[in-house]
Amino acid sequence: MGRVLVTGIGPGDRGGMTGRAWDALADADILCGYDRYVDLVRPLFPDKPVVATGMKREVERCRMALEAAASGKTVAVVCSGDPGVYGMAGLIYELSAEYPPVDIEIVPGVSAAMSGAAVLGAPLMHDFAVVSLSDLLTPWERIAERLHGAAAAGFVLCLYNPASTRRRDALARACGIILEHRKPETVCGWTRNIGRDGQASGILTLGELRGWRADMFVTLFIGSEATRIVNGKMVTPRGYAGLEQ
Amino acid sequence: MGRVLVTGIGPGDRGGMTGRAWDALADADILCGYDRYVDLVRPLFPDKPVVATGMKREVERCRMALEAAASGKTVAVVCSGDPGVYGMAGLIYELSAEYPPVDIEIVPGVSAAMSGAAVLGAPLMHDFAVVSLSDLLTPWERIAERLHGAAAAGFVLCLYNPASTRRRDALARACGIILEHRKPETVCGWTRNIGRDGQASGILTLGELRGWRADMFVTLFIGSEATRIVNGKMVTPRGYAGLEQ
Repeated sequence: MGRVLVTGIGPGDRGGMTGRAWDALADADILCGYDRYVDLVRPLFPDKPVVATGMKREVERCRMALEAAASGKTVAVVCSGDPGVYGMAGLIYELSAEYPPVDIEIVPGVSAAMSGAAVLGAPLMHDFAVVSLSDLLTPWERIAERLHGAAAAGFVLCLYNPASTRRRDALARACGIILEHRKPETVCGWTRNIGRDGQASGILTLGELRGWRADMFVTLFIGSEATRIVNGKMVTPRGYAGLEQ
Repeated sequence: MGRVLVTGIGPGDRGGMTGRAWDALADADILCGYDRYVDLVRPLFPDKPVVATGMKREVERCRMALEAAASGKTVAVVCSGDPGVYGMAGLIYELSAEYPPVDIEIVPGVSAAMSGAAVLGAPLMHDFAVVSLSDLLTPWERIAERLHGAAAAGFVLCLYNPASTRRRDALARACGIILEHRKPETVCGWTRNIGRDGQASGILTLGELRGWRADMFVTLFIGSEATRIVNGKMVTPRGYAGLEQ
């Protein structure tokens, strides 16, 4: 029976992916995915056939993967980070009902929330919420409602897809919402191209973040009231240190 | 200069950790951590010196790691899952100010939110919130406030530490709060010992979860209104499939 291995490659290099993700890519007859992500792993498996398409072709890609699996192939659907966090895991399951039965396995990976947090320090040490600012699949009103809810309830926030060429003001609007619940001095952090060439990161305040220019390669972290800068790093204490006294 | 590598081992086997996590353990002069987690990687490095202590000795363990690093050693602080999600990353930074300067690196890993989601299907495909039900470091009122906020704002919820021998009723109370915002038929999932011996998982309703008996090895997933069962898996659609029409 054919197989679809929906595989999280983390940042994309061998050191950033799990052993199982590596094995999934190695076992696959075909690598399938968004061309930008497939290009990350292509040099690791130069002889492997590739099916890659551009942005916003998610349904088409997943259909190609399911079709190839239905013909008996093992197909790795290559996802940046983790396939279950804004990746292709859900869509593969949704579309699979239209195809002959194949084995589907989700191979988890290190999502940008974790790899970005590791670069900044330890911002997600306490309860956190992950929100995508892309309004392509979700109306802005729904995104705004979640930002309000998470900020009011004291969550650290991790923001995916803070901007695209089409959405330049999403971050400013998001910060405006969060500023209704949190002080402008709140510690925030940005990471870009985590674990890849051109990796960069920085710490700034929520007030500064509002006017900051994000792009599609950025993942953002908005601290809670407890988040602070320790030794140049963004840290949200969980409270262990207080237990000592 | 000494180094502390705060290392996320994911579920604990080699296939579940990243290449960089493996290298960190291999490079370390000493493995340090909660004895249960250190025991997971000890067979992989049988000759490596180990400093392990039991539960609730987090501060002591981190101090031992920082002391050893201050004397020039490379110490891997072994964390289950990801060190930045309810792990030791934050505490190491907090305590490091009291010690001579050492290099600190956080090596991210696959957290139970991602590895558990992969077992259940694709529950975290849309915005989600991660909440620990442990009231050891956080007052219950604060936990309740976050559950209310996340449930009202439509987040999928991932619950860590749903129970311990001391806290038997936390899950029932948490479900009671979420049921104020979501229907009893809401699709939920549980995972136990993900990626380890005795791995198990199941799907049930929020109403059923309220009376379910959790333990400390369980990670729970509470669906949003959109979450449904697809082919026996728990899936939260992101909306790609709808774009096709």
